[in-house]
Amino acid sequence: MNIGILGAGNVGGTLARAWARRGHEIVIGVRDPDSPKTRETVEGCGGKARAGAVEEAARCEVMVNALPFAATKEALQALNLSGKVLLDCANPLKRDMSGLEIGTTTSGGEMAAQWARGAKVVKIFNSTGYNNMADPNYGGVPLTMFYCGDDTDAKRIAASLARDIGFDPVDAGPLSNARLLEPVAMLWIWLAIQGGMDHAFGFKLLTRT
Amino acid sequence: MNIGILGAGNVGGTLARAWARRGHEIVIGVRDPDSPKTRETVEGCGGKARAGAVEEAARCEVMVNALPFAATKEALQALNLSGKVLLDCANPLKRDMSGLEIGTTTSGGEMAAQWARGAKVVKIFNSTGYNNMADPNYGGVPLTMFYCGDDTDAKRIAASLARDIGFDPVDAGPLSNARLLEPVAMLWIWLAIQGGMDHAFGFKLLTRT
Repeated sequence: MNIGILGAGNVGGTLARAWARRGHEIVIGVRDPDSPKTRETVEGCGGKARAGAVEEAARCEVMVNALPFAATKEALQALNLSGKVLLDCANPLKRDMSGLEIGTTTSGGEMAAQWARGAKVVKIFNSTGYNNMADPNYGGVPLTMFYCGDDTDAKRIAASLARDIGFDPVDAGPLSNARLLEPVAMLWIWLAIQGGMDHAFGFKLLTRT
Repeated sequence: MNIGILGAGNVGGTLARAWARRGHEIVIGVRDPDSPKTRETVEGCGGKARAGAVEEAARCEVMVNALPFAATKEALQALNLSGKVLLDCANPLKRDMSGLEIGTTTSGGEMAAQWARGAKVVKIFNSTGYNNMADPNYGGVPLTMFYCGDDTDAKRIAASLARDIGFDPVDAGPLSNARLLEPVAMLWIWLAIQGGMDHAFGFKLLTRT
């Protein structure tokens, strides 16, 4: 397949090398095809990639947007992409990477903390089905239970209660990260219902051994 | 530990039974302690649980909100929870469970689709680090790559490109579900940076075998 990649950063470069190894033909679309970073990426693709203008990349069968989100609008609007397959890898991150710039505004967890005045709220047991709470053991592997909150002791208790019933608890930060864990829950629900996966699945955070 | 659970639905009931098996003492706080559902849950806890008013449940060391989100505000505001540990399991779902009622408004993926007029946008390769794109193999287990979009053919191509480089692709629905996959990405980023997990981890959707 001919794959055009916008951007030669970490994501674009990694995908280019990985696909090149599998025999795909890559065009890396950048402003400066002769930059050291771009050259390095092209060389890492063993003859299966070349660098060119973004318009050249946009002629490929499949396009990949591996630009930072802040550069995405200008780049995409300048191209004719009608009918194209465009794989979008950009995330609308805040400059300090502390959160998403758009799309998330508040969370049920934060609202619960406003309502339960003075309580030490931990968002937990929200991101998987109750069937998994009954049995989080997947062939010897415990599902992950993400939790977040602003009180260290409350989080310690929450984690131990999750571990008690067989989960692998993972600290997902402050309560404002309920803005992330609630969408994780919604993803589980979507896959279960609309996605037709029923309930016999769950999320696991894997680490390299 | 004394655990007070608000709500005796699927989540509350399941957690009660699971913790009871581990020797915790449960108080299920409900409006009607004599309802068949509540009785069934209490019986399933083998002498380790009783049902009572929500105020009784709120006297426990740890409180769990297992009410629907729509019932959460009234319930929490009516209680004195100052200093309490409150585990919040509620998700602000729309009535038809098609999405979150609050917190998510749009996504980078949907904006990209507006900018790339006519393109068949698939959100993919956004929810894990580039190191994992270089090597998604975790001891023989491929990481999951979630993707979403509105065009079937474009999604098929996206999935095959993910499979090509070693991922287990999972269809996460329409492009509007980028509202879920971008927070999943943000969770990965938070864990990697603020969470101090570095980059040697990734998400896997496990299914029962």
